[in-house]
Amino acid sequence: MITIHGMCASGNCYKLQLLLSQLDQPYRWIEVDTLNGGTRTPEFLAKNPNGKVPLLELEDGRCLAESNAILCYLAEASPLLPNERWARAQTLQWLFFEQYSHEPYVAVARFIAKFLPADHPRRAELPRLQARAHQALAVMERELATRDFMVASGYSIADIALYAYTHDAPAGGIELGGYPHVQAWLRRVESQPRFVRQRD
Amino acid sequence: MITIHGMCASGNCYKLQLLLSQLDQPYRWIEVDTLNGGTRTPEFLAKNPNGKVPLLELEDGRCLAESNAILCYLAEASPLLPNERWARAQTLQWLFFEQYSHEPYVAVARFIAKFLPADHPRRAELPRLQARAHQALAVMERELATRDFMVASGYSIADIALYAYTHDAPAGGIELGGYPHVQAWLRRVESQPRFVRQRD
Repeated sequence: MITIHGMCASGNCYKLQLLLSQLDQPYRWIEVDTLNGGTRTPEFLAKNPNGKVPLLELEDGRCLAESNAILCYLAEASPLLPNERWARAQTLQWLFFEQYSHEPYVAVARFIAKFLPADHPRRAELPRLQARAHQALAVMERELATRDFMVASGYSIADIALYAYTHDAPAGGIELGGYPHVQAWLRRVESQPRFVRQRD
Repeated sequence: MITIHGMCASGNCYKLQLLLSQLDQPYRWIEVDTLNGGTRTPEFLAKNPNGKVPLLELEDGRCLAESNAILCYLAEASPLLPNERWARAQTLQWLFFEQYSHEPYVAVARFIAKFLPADHPRRAELPRLQARAHQALAVMERELATRDFMVASGYSIADIALYAYTHDAPAGGIELGGYPHVQAWLRRVESQPRFVRQRD
């Protein structure tokens, strides 16, 4: 059985919980306390030199890092990772968009607003992060005005990756009221078979 | 014939020049002046709503964004994107590492130091960016101490993606003297067939 090293409060880790539920694939979960050095121990760094969760560990000990690379690996040969060349390219495009133009703003704003004390100096970063988050949401809104899911061929790991932090964007002070197509898409993702909410 | 919309000074765009040379695939290049709004025109935003280069345009007008998604698309069925499942997963892992943990520091430090005026306020960001860049380089150094290329199966688009900004890291004030394995790997990449240098 595969093992996921993760932290439930992380959207990047939640992506894997959602995918594995939808694939109906059993797994072992090891909760890592990233806020208190759990990814900085010699044992963890031996598994992932970049010191981040989530981390996939196979039964034979091989490890794979990067949430979206793990999504691709686990979804291979399922309808959640299209096999057709152009649809697969679009899926990857949105996975890279998520990690470069979306997560560094939506997720980091959520982290600061939700998990750091009210007087923490990093709160000064929020306006800039929220502005960039809105740029990413505007791109999604424009795309989702024309189709039901991020990739035209249907629901995929691109939706899972972008759902993970978009659904909790308001916790980072990023209101979704101006994005009706994004909101309708959130409801479509939540109505997929074997959808699971993020554990708190 | 495919078209690449890009800017020669960008490492993300250079990735595609390097790959297409190594694939011996002809292409048309359209230089986009990103520093003067070239990615913000209605025409460009219609092709890529996220307003970034590089952008791949097929002969029939379909467009694909995100440099590393384009690398995957173009390298499909070539030895530069391994077909074996685990090697492919590792390739994607390093492509996501590059965009999340490497490029936002190495490339942004290079941009600020190389292209902004000496008195520009963004130069205050350099120490933080350089520190994070060194974290990414330390991860690469550790990996490259054990093998010749980022993925054990051999030279791949993971090397192309990471070479693009690593080779010019000193331009961002990020010295490579402490990373002998990274330096040896740079020379190995440069000795690959049909290697081309970044045009200035």
